[in-house]
This record gives sequence, structure tokens and C-alpha cells, in this order.
Amino acid sequence: MKIAIMGYGTIGSGVAKVLTENHKLVKKNVGEELDIKYILDLRDFPEDPHRDKIVNDIDAIINDPEVRIVVETMGGLHPAFEFVKRCLEAGKSVTTSNKALVADYGVELQEIARKNHAGFMCEASVGGGIPILRVLDTCLTADLIEEISGIVNGTTNYMLTEMEKNGTDFETVLKDAQNKGYAEKDPTADIEGFDAARKIAILTSIVSHHNVDFNEIPVEGITGISVRDIGYAKKMNMAIKLIANATRENGSYSLRVAPYMIKNDNPLYSVNGAFNAIFVKGNMLGDSMYYGSGAGSIPTASAVCADIIALAKKIDEPEYEFYWDSNNLKLADPGKTKCRFFVRADTTKTTKNEAENMFPDAEFRESIYDNEISFITGKYQDEEILNRLNRLKGVIQKIRIKE
Amino acid sequence: MKIAIMGYGTIGSGVAKVLTENHKLVKKNVGEELDIKYILDLRDFPEDPHRDKIVNDIDAIINDPEVRIVVETMGGLHPAFEFVKRCLEAGKSVTTSNKALVADYGVELQEIARKNHAGFMCEASVGGGIPILRVLDTCLTADLIEEISGIVNGTTNYMLTEMEKNGTDFETVLKDAQNKGYAEKDPTADIEGFDAARKIAILTSIVSHHNVDFNEIPVEGITGISVRDIGYAKKMNMAIKLIANATRENGSYSLRVAPYMIKNDNPLYSVNGAFNAIFVKGNMLGDSMYYGSGAGSIPTASAVCADIIALAKKIDEPEYEFYWDSNNLKLADPGKTKCRFFVRADTTKTTKNEAENMFPDAEFRESIYDNEISFITGKYQDEEILNRLNRLKGVIQKIRIKE
Repeated sequence: MKIAIMGYGTIGSGVAKVLTENHKLVKKNVGEELDIKYILDLRDFPEDPHRDKIVNDIDAIINDPEVRIVVETMGGLHPAFEFVKRCLEAGKSVTTSNKALVADYGVELQEIARKNHAGFMCEASVGGGIPILRVLDTCLTADLIEEISGIVNGTTNYMLTEMEKNGTDFETVLKDAQNKGYAEKDPTADIEGFDAARKIAILTSIVSHHNVDFNEIPVEGITGISVRDIGYAKKMNMAIKLIANATRENGSYSLRVAPYMIKNDNPLYSVNGAFNAIFVKGNMLGDSMYYGSGAGSIPTASAVCADIIALAKKIDEPEYEFYWDSNNLKLADPGKTKCRFFVRADTTKTTKNEAENMFPDAEFRESIYDNEISFITGKYQDEEILNRLNRLKGVIQKIRIKE
Repeated sequence: MKIAIMGYGTIGSGVAKVLTENHKLVKKNVGEELDIKYILDLRDFPEDPHRDKIVNDIDAIINDPEVRIVVETMGGLHPAFEFVKRCLEAGKSVTTSNKALVADYGVELQEIARKNHAGFMCEASVGGGIPILRVLDTCLTADLIEEISGIVNGTTNYMLTEMEKNGTDFETVLKDAQNKGYAEKDPTADIEGFDAARKIAILTSIVSHHNVDFNEIPVEGITGISVRDIGYAKKMNMAIKLIANATRENGSYSLRVAPYMIKNDNPLYSVNGAFNAIFVKGNMLGDSMYYGSGAGSIPTASAVCADIIALAKKIDEPEYEFYWDSNNLKLADPGKTKCRFFVRADTTKTTKNEAENMFPDAEFRESIYDNEISFITGKYQDEEILNRLNRLKGVIQKIRIKE
């Protein structure tokens, strides 16, 4: 069995490493030898053990009938989409770790794969090494999924953990994360929550079997979270995490990406650093959680290689487990979802009385800072609380609380 | 598609409930209607909605060619083994939640299934509703599994959690657990660790592809754990959990079931009450954990029903994913595994000096009780530490520490 890797960056080189280091194990699980024949990249890698496999032209892969499986680890939308499409049309099975590609073109690529009797898998596109797509699609099949709540972005989780542990402010932590390679030079997709939105869109597509347009998901990042907010959370035995949430409502799902305060009895509470975890609630199973390395070259490559093995075992009869159709899922209105907010307000601009008038059932908390009041609202529809907070003067911060 | 349920107790009735409540979803996932035709039980259930399906004779199921899938939820070894064997020989696929059956006869039943072109699955036999067998067998396929550490017995975890939370002693908690139905009248299998041993044997069989004889696993239960021990653990930011462990050593696995102290940065630390969790470390993936309801009628039935759906989808071409062969895995000597122990000793029988002579690199801890010293040993082979502890007078307690 010959394979090709498109994109020899962090994950692509990890795939080569996993296949080399666990060569015997992979061979045993596939049932035959599995070799990398080509690595597509525009760069040269003169010192690399696989340097003689580097090609610069996709046609080398497309035109070689010996290559049955292609790994897409280029990232980005173009030319990743065109290359994957051409591979599938040539009857080659594909696995990708590219969440942008899967969120934008997943349904189209699955249809092309079916038409051409090729396999298509994308386990590593969500949660890095954590087996979550397969768990949702082939294990939790007897359950109606009532909720998915994921810490699915390692960069922001690392940053929030550092802020909590060391009291470092957002800007300093971001620079540190960039220096360490945990955050990209342009960190927008991570810190503004767009990466997490793509991932919860993919997860919801799998459980609903319909396409979810991630552009419809309301997204708040962590740029507004301060060390002070984290201090309040700590005092209430809570932590602040960027959560990508899908909650079943009225036969559909309500989706949101936002920072949430979560209590210390929630299994997501202790997911720290660059780790990811996905909480899944089934109507029969109840609570479950899947935890592991959500990023990093080798853990993510481990999931890509598990896909390669699964594709190789069914190379002549590919299965279409992750299939969802092109009808966009009509999302439930997230503004109608009921929740509580934690609120901080400036007492030079408002009073406890005014806050109590707006939120008669608010639970006031001891303030850590001068000229501040803090409280937890009662449980109302999201839009109703935001509406009232808009009318209250001096609101410094508002963070949803995860039940 | 017609199915039969053998044993209409806690889990069997849960299976009927899940199939009824999620009827539409199951039909969609199977691709056709799935109906319960028979329920085998010696008892009558005059008030039950499925009362007209109750049969008392296994032959009704065996002789009906319409029944393609049989669910074994009787528990115990006999006649469960004989009944499952007969079903498989009649070409019917079987799923079982019975860990004793799988640990004792799993390899034999899988061979009978293969010979008769029938499917055999047992996801619910370990970790209740948590999808762990399928995760190990079909998701983590590119990894050499270096460690599995599971909290796989809900009864003992519930008891240890209650002891920690309320300071209640072992005997009282056990009676309470029995009254609430969490512990059986004869609690031996749970509290002495035998149930956990069967489960880690099954998990190790899956990752090693060889049969693991659970009788070879050294087992210590929780009967020796006192509220005082838990108090010491708390003071060190640790918890005491009954862990079923398999660690890769010298090309095999070293297995042990015992109470361990685990630190608060370990993902197993916050697994409380009747919940189960299985920590899995792959040589590429790194740390991962799978958490959920390890017992209970409906969560366990959810896993059985997922098996039913998987069997139904491949009814004419069953897959043998969980296959392990009948060669007993030669286990690595657990006495050679290196670890640390927490030790309490009676100062009316020994002195700190004597303890220091025996363990020169011991870290002494502040004692909570009069006439006691407590310390953590250096890291040595398990048998070496036990050997020295045997020679030290006045040892009250010794508990391994999970790294």
C-alpha cells in the first residue's frame, strides 16, 4: 500500500514520523506493508530522511495509480480543496487534518468521494489526537445527542491556564504563546473563537447529519477576558474556558462559541494547558467526556495515521461513516437558550440598587476590587439578559456560566 | 430485523427501554426497523409493556431463524456461556454486557462466532456506557499503548468518594451503598477488586491481541482503606482511587489492581461517585482519557444498543474487531515495576530513625494523628519496597502512588 502526504509541515512531518516509528504496528494493523511514496511540498528538505520522496507537482501523485491513499496536511482552503478534489476524482482515498477544509467543503468532498468510490476521513480535524468524530459516529449511535461542549482550541486554553496560574495579563501571555509556537503570528482565528466555531460546526454536522454553516454561529473570543475576571472565577471555585457548545433544542441545535465560567465539579474544569476535551451528553448515556492532546505534531498525526489504517483496511470498499448531507441545518436561536451570567459593574456609574432593580433575583458576590459590584443573574433567555445588561450602566464584564 | 434479549434484569430491561425510547433514531441508524421478538427470563413481568415477549425456554430463540441478534444481559457464567454459544452456533450475532463471560470465555466465543459467520461484541462489558473497547480497537490503531489506568468499578469509586466527602467509615459506606443498590449483597467481587481485574484483563487482551488470564493479576481491594488514609491523601492534594493498571514493559504488560493515591493534576483525580474513566497513554498520542457512566441500567444499555446497531449494519458480513487469540499473554512481573509508596507507621513500635534507615530517601510528611509517622518512599521496584516494609516494624498502612 503506497501513500502520499500533501504538505510537509508540523502535522505532515508528524505523520511520516508516526508511520516510521510505529512501522511494525501499522503493518500489522493494516495487514500489509504501508509506504510513503511521495511528499508534496514546495520547499526542499535536504536533511530529512524522506528527502527523496519530495515532489513539487501534484500530478506526480494524481497520475501514479500505485498511490491509493493521500494525506492532506497542507492547511488552508486553497489549493488544499482543489488538490483533495483531484485525488478523490482519481479514486484515491483521502484523510485530512484540515478543519477549515472540512468545515467549508466537507459535504462536497464527501459527495465527490462517494461518486468516485474513494474513502474520505477527517478524524484529526477536531480535537487533534482525541478520537471524537468516530466516537460520535460509530459508538454513541443509540443516543440522541443532547449536548456537546468542547474545549477544542489548545492555544486559548493554554493562554487561559497561564493567566490563571501566574496572573499574567492577556497581552503578555499571547506574546509568550507566540514565542513558544503555541499561537500563530496572526492569532485571530484562535483567540477570536473562529477555529472553535469551525470545529463545533463539524461535530454538529456529524450528529445531525446535515451541514452546519459555521458562519451562522455566534462567536466571542477571549480577548476581553482579564486576570480580574479569572480572580472572580477562582473565588467562586470556577474556571474560565473557551467553550464551543451545541445544545439540542426544538429538534435542532443551538450553537455558540464563548468564554464560559465552569464549576469545579464539571469534568471540563480541570482540562488545562494545551489539552482539549469534548463533553458529550446523550439522552441515554448521560454525561461522557473525551480528553487528550488537541494539538501538536505527533498526537494529531496519530489520529491521521489511525484514519490511514482505517482507509487502508477498506480500500476496495470504503465506508462513509462521517457522511452529512448538503442541506444546511436550520440552527435553533441561541438567543432563546436559557442561562445565567456573571456580571461585574462599576459603582461609580451604577449602584447595587440599580442592578437589583434590573435583576431582582441576582446573587451578589463579594467584590475583589474597589468601586465594583459583581453578581450572578437569574436564569433567563440569553437575549433577555443581554438586553437588560445593555440598559444597566457601568457594566464592565459579562460572562456566561456553564450549568 | 428481529432481536432477542436474554436476561430481563437491570441491563436487559434498560436495553428494551433504550430501543423503545430511541426507536426512530435506532431505525435510522440501522437502516430498517429493529424489533424485540423475545425476552428470555424465568420470571414473569405481568405489568411490563414487553410482557408478551417473555419466554422461558432458550429454544424459542435458537429455533427462530428470524432472530438475527441476541443480547446477553443475564450475568454470571452459566448458563450464559452455554446460551451464547448456542446462539452463535445457530449463526446469530451476539452482544453481551457480561464482563465475567468475556474475561473467562471471550476468546472461545469469538472463535465460535468466526466459525459460524456470526458477530460478537461486548462494548458494555467494560466501563458501562463509555466507548472504550471500540476506541482501543478502531481509533487508537496507530499507537503502541504504553499504559491503561482505569477507574472501572463504580461501586468502589462511589464508596471512596463518600468516605472522602463525608468522612464516613468503610463499613457504614458499604451498608449505605448496599441499601441504595450501588453494592450487591455479597460485595466481594467489587470491593476486593476482582471485577476491576476482569475488566483490565479484557482491555489488555484487546491491545495485546492475546488472551489475558485475570487470575494472574495481583489484586488488592479497598477493604483496608480508612478515613485516616484519605485524610493524609487530601492533605497532600491527592485522592485514593481503586485503579486497574496495565503498563507496557519488556514487550508485554505488567498488570495490577490496587488502591492508589493520585495527584490532583491527574485527569483521574476528579472522577467521583459512580463514574468510571479510563486513562490511555499511546506512544504517539500521549495522554488521553475516556469518562462517563460506568454502570447503571440505561447508560450501560446505551452501549449494548450501539453494539446491536453495529451488528445489524453488518449482519451478513460481521467484522471481528475485538479479536484476540487464545495464547495467554505472558505478563511482565508487576513486582519489578518501579513505584513509590505512601506509608504510615506506629511510633510506639518504630521510630523515624528506623524508617529513615530503611528508606534513606523517604520524604516525611506532617502526621495528622498521634503516635504516627508518615512518609513517601523513594522510587524502587515494587517488591523491593514491600520487602523493606516487611522488615520495618509498626507499618499501619502502605498505598502506592500513581505517577
